[in-house]
Amino acid sequence: MPGRITSLFRTELPIVQAGMVWVSGWRLASAVSAAGALGLIGAGSMKPELLREHITKARAATDRTFGVNLPLLRGDIGALIDVVAEERVPVVFTAAGHPGRHIERFKRYGATVVHVVANVKQALKAQECGCDAVVAEGFEAGGHNGMDELTTLTLVPLIADAVSVPVIAAGGIADGRQMAAAFALGAEGVQVGTRFAATVESSGHDDYKRRIVEAGEGDTVLTYRGILPVRALRNPFMASVEREERERGMTRERMMELHAKGRERKGIFEGDWQEGEMEMGQSAALVRDVPPAREVVRRMMEEFHAARERLARSG
Amino acid sequence: MPGRITSLFRTELPIVQAGMVWVSGWRLASAVSAAGALGLIGAGSMKPELLREHITKARAATDRTFGVNLPLLRGDIGALIDVVAEERVPVVFTAAGHPGRHIERFKRYGATVVHVVANVKQALKAQECGCDAVVAEGFEAGGHNGMDELTTLTLVPLIADAVSVPVIAAGGIADGRQMAAAFALGAEGVQVGTRFAATVESSGHDDYKRRIVEAGEGDTVLTYRGILPVRALRNPFMASVEREERERGMTRERMMELHAKGRERKGIFEGDWQEGEMEMGQSAALVRDVPPAREVVRRMMEEFHAARERLARSG
Repeated sequence: MPGRITSLFRTELPIVQAGMVWVSGWRLASAVSAAGALGLIGAGSMKPELLREHITKARAATDRTFGVNLPLLRGDIGALIDVVAEERVPVVFTAAGHPGRHIERFKRYGATVVHVVANVKQALKAQECGCDAVVAEGFEAGGHNGMDELTTLTLVPLIADAVSVPVIAAGGIADGRQMAAAFALGAEGVQVGTRFAATVESSGHDDYKRRIVEAGEGDTVLTYRGILPVRALRNPFMASVEREERERGMTRERMMELHAKGRERKGIFEGDWQEGEMEMGQSAALVRDVPPAREVVRRMMEEFHAARERLARSG
Repeated sequence: MPGRITSLFRTELPIVQAGMVWVSGWRLASAVSAAGALGLIGAGSMKPELLREHITKARAATDRTFGVNLPLLRGDIGALIDVVAEERVPVVFTAAGHPGRHIERFKRYGATVVHVVANVKQALKAQECGCDAVVAEGFEAGGHNGMDELTTLTLVPLIADAVSVPVIAAGGIADGRQMAAAFALGAEGVQVGTRFAATVESSGHDDYKRRIVEAGEGDTVLTYRGILPVRALRNPFMASVEREERERGMTRERMMELHAKGRERKGIFEGDWQEGEMEMGQSAALVRDVPPAREVVRRMMEEFHAARERLARSG
């Protein structure tokens, strides 16, 4: 499927598997890349040397392009960047923080750099500092989320109008109908998280995957609004945070206490339903099984073509 | 554009202008219907006899189909329903509450009945009690909003999978790219609010229309979450509500105090920037002028066809 996104990433398909903490290691990233899309290793939950190990293993597993997702706000981000640059990872997705400070480092060895944004201001800034594309991520996305609460349906056309680099739509996308919708809005690629979190190759706990499959509409909740928004399953822990927030409000200090580092690991990697944070997007309601990553890619393209044909026949 | 929605409404185009308090009287509704779409008189801000007057005037202004939107939770809903039934309004949209109790009344004289829903449960219930279609309205919509915070991009495919009646997508839709996206998701029509609120024929105050045009991304806010969510422009009043909610939480009692009846009138009809509630959706960021309603319809169809062609050419 030729286009600006597949040229940038040298992939067959304009689908990106989102970098996800505790979920997307070398196994998932290489399976997605082998299927013709772009797999990303989520460095957010890795120490620098573990990241290196995952890059090495992904290379051994596939000769297709894969990338790394870097959360720029991490205290030791310098050490992660060193690993990515030393290993000359061909595609780097950056999230949160300011890519401008680091982009030269990646560009010097010829990498493609993409920044994840949640509003037009951030998209323009990313373009200005040399990013090759932007991910426009809406309110429905799982995990960390923008402050403006713009949904994918409104965010993507706003950003497509504002920038000249290609836009990758993210947030809420789990099937090919939604991929076709994203393209109608002006996106040239999609980034898909939750759907890939519930695959055989995902390193999330089996109970976490099962919870994604069982999640229905309205089962995720966005907490810490206006501070550092996070979307996750409404399990006992998140329900208590939601209740507290609604009844008493929320401060940054209290958020730091609640959203302690171990929560994501507990929920996603250890499958702790009571006390963990099981991050997932609203699209969990559309996920009904745990197939291999390759099958997700195949279905998505099949549904994309079907939606496109249905649209072409309408009216 | 033949399809189930245009057959139901006997219109040329599958576009519905949302019923909006203080905005969509006979003037806007008849202009939209005359342009080939479906105009709705928003009964929410009308006393029964005023509603009758608007129906009469809309009939005088156009011989095309128009409808009425009824907020079922109103104390005097019985009297509004009497007017609609006596006038044999051919299309009735119901919002909030339970349509089941009233649907027979409309069906008896042959009306088409559509219920506005914000989750699958409500959609199934509406279908079961005999509604001819449902409006699936997402989190990005202006005014009163569902409790589940499902966005249009996730809500529409979930509902399209669940019901057999046609689905009309709403929430965030201001242009034809978004209309094409809605169709890719499985919708067969779109309901458009904010874009029509900023038209010549809208009865909103000029300052309210100007504020829609000037609103940028992130300028609307959803307040009273989990109680009775309302999306409006972040003006001084709404910013104070937002602050209070974040710092101290919100109760139903306090909400009733703040969201008093006069607020909507003050904001939308009187253009009071300081103290009013200027309801609008996230799509306000895509609205850049105040054209006649006919021009909105024309552009939307032009953009719809362009998006469809662009999508057909992709890959």
